[in-house]
Amino acid sequence: MEIKIMKNILDRNLDKANEVRNILKEKKVVMVNIISSPGAGKTTLLERTCEKLAAKLRIGVIEGDITTDRDAQRLKKYNIPIVVINTEGGCHLDSHSISKVLDLFDLNNLDVIFVENVGNLICPSHFDLGESFKLAVVSTAEGDDKPGKYPMLFREAKAVLLNKIDLIPYTNFNFSSFRTDLDKINPQIPLFEVSCTKGDGLEEWFEWIEKQIRIHD
Amino acid sequence: MEIKIMKNILDRNLDKANEVRNILKEKKVVMVNIISSPGAGKTTLLERTCEKLAAKLRIGVIEGDITTDRDAQRLKKYNIPIVVINTEGGCHLDSHSISKVLDLFDLNNLDVIFVENVGNLICPSHFDLGESFKLAVVSTAEGDDKPGKYPMLFREAKAVLLNKIDLIPYTNFNFSSFRTDLDKINPQIPLFEVSCTKGDGLEEWFEWIEKQIRIHD
Repeated sequence: MEIKIMKNILDRNLDKANEVRNILKEKKVVMVNIISSPGAGKTTLLERTCEKLAAKLRIGVIEGDITTDRDAQRLKKYNIPIVVINTEGGCHLDSHSISKVLDLFDLNNLDVIFVENVGNLICPSHFDLGESFKLAVVSTAEGDDKPGKYPMLFREAKAVLLNKIDLIPYTNFNFSSFRTDLDKINPQIPLFEVSCTKGDGLEEWFEWIEKQIRIHD
Repeated sequence: MEIKIMKNILDRNLDKANEVRNILKEKKVVMVNIISSPGAGKTTLLERTCEKLAAKLRIGVIEGDITTDRDAQRLKKYNIPIVVINTEGGCHLDSHSISKVLDLFDLNNLDVIFVENVGNLICPSHFDLGESFKLAVVSTAEGDDKPGKYPMLFREAKAVLLNKIDLIPYTNFNFSSFRTDLDKINPQIPLFEVSCTKGDGLEEWFEWIEKQIRIHD
């Protein structure tokens, strides 16, 4: 019974996600669904990405948060359209909440919408938002065992961004264990090793993400 | 409709949690429900706690994980009873899963069961397991804004353990922002500032947790 209810919820979510995807396709807007644990660095990644690309790409952001608009406040300085969705205790965004806010953007004048999902390595992976693809962000401080222990996101994502590589010398993070785990789950997936606070390794990321966004050019 | 279903699930969970709590009370076993983001250091905390206290307290552990028994493997060396619950994609433990495995312990010969919940700062806070109390673990590498952004756990917990204080010099963690946020949500809550890998600050934690467990003496 509970499983059936869950299936209905996911089916309805997928229907609405496909609607969102069709609208975005028609408007030639790429949507990136960014998923990570709390504090892995999604907002800092968006700060760096806006600094680099906001002058040449038309960027919009949807900030998913349980409560507060703190992450959105951090992005205000880039003068881009930002919409906050507060889930009020909810552990993930879904396609219905995305669909409701899509009208708040001028889709004819956007190239990409970055969705910063609620900080949670599990539930957001189950809910298609109508995105073009998912991006997994994981920080070295979380340990090298995350792909093995939380495989779903790493299976579903189009790329993995390993953040906080500057902390590796001060932790017991073992890169080869991380790589071995990831290879078992998704051997072809692009992996970016970066520090969003220090700026290390970001050039490859900027190049890759710009290419994904310019797919309609 | 969906809200009503969720209420039913939570009501049934609470009924079973109260059953678990009554059994544990009768057997004079304390249960600690440990909740954190992925990689905040729950297992390392259990390693340090077993090293210090397993000789004088009878400790059991329930390991909640989506898949794998990696955390349980790390605790095998302490020769304590450990039960693994794999949620197979599920984002939290519930009281029914705890109730099912309780018989696997010899409750007459235990003082405490530590439950390491699934790594998730949100969903586990909503599900009472029948525990004596919740412990919130948060790592400095996650940033100082976690109590403000994920208030529920910090409201519900009996204590907060701030882990990885050895990383503070290499991050932009601001202790006073963290403290201000926490004070707004739960000003009286005990806060332990520790590094489970380096051993810093653990004595206060050992003393406090031993006192909570010896409540039946």
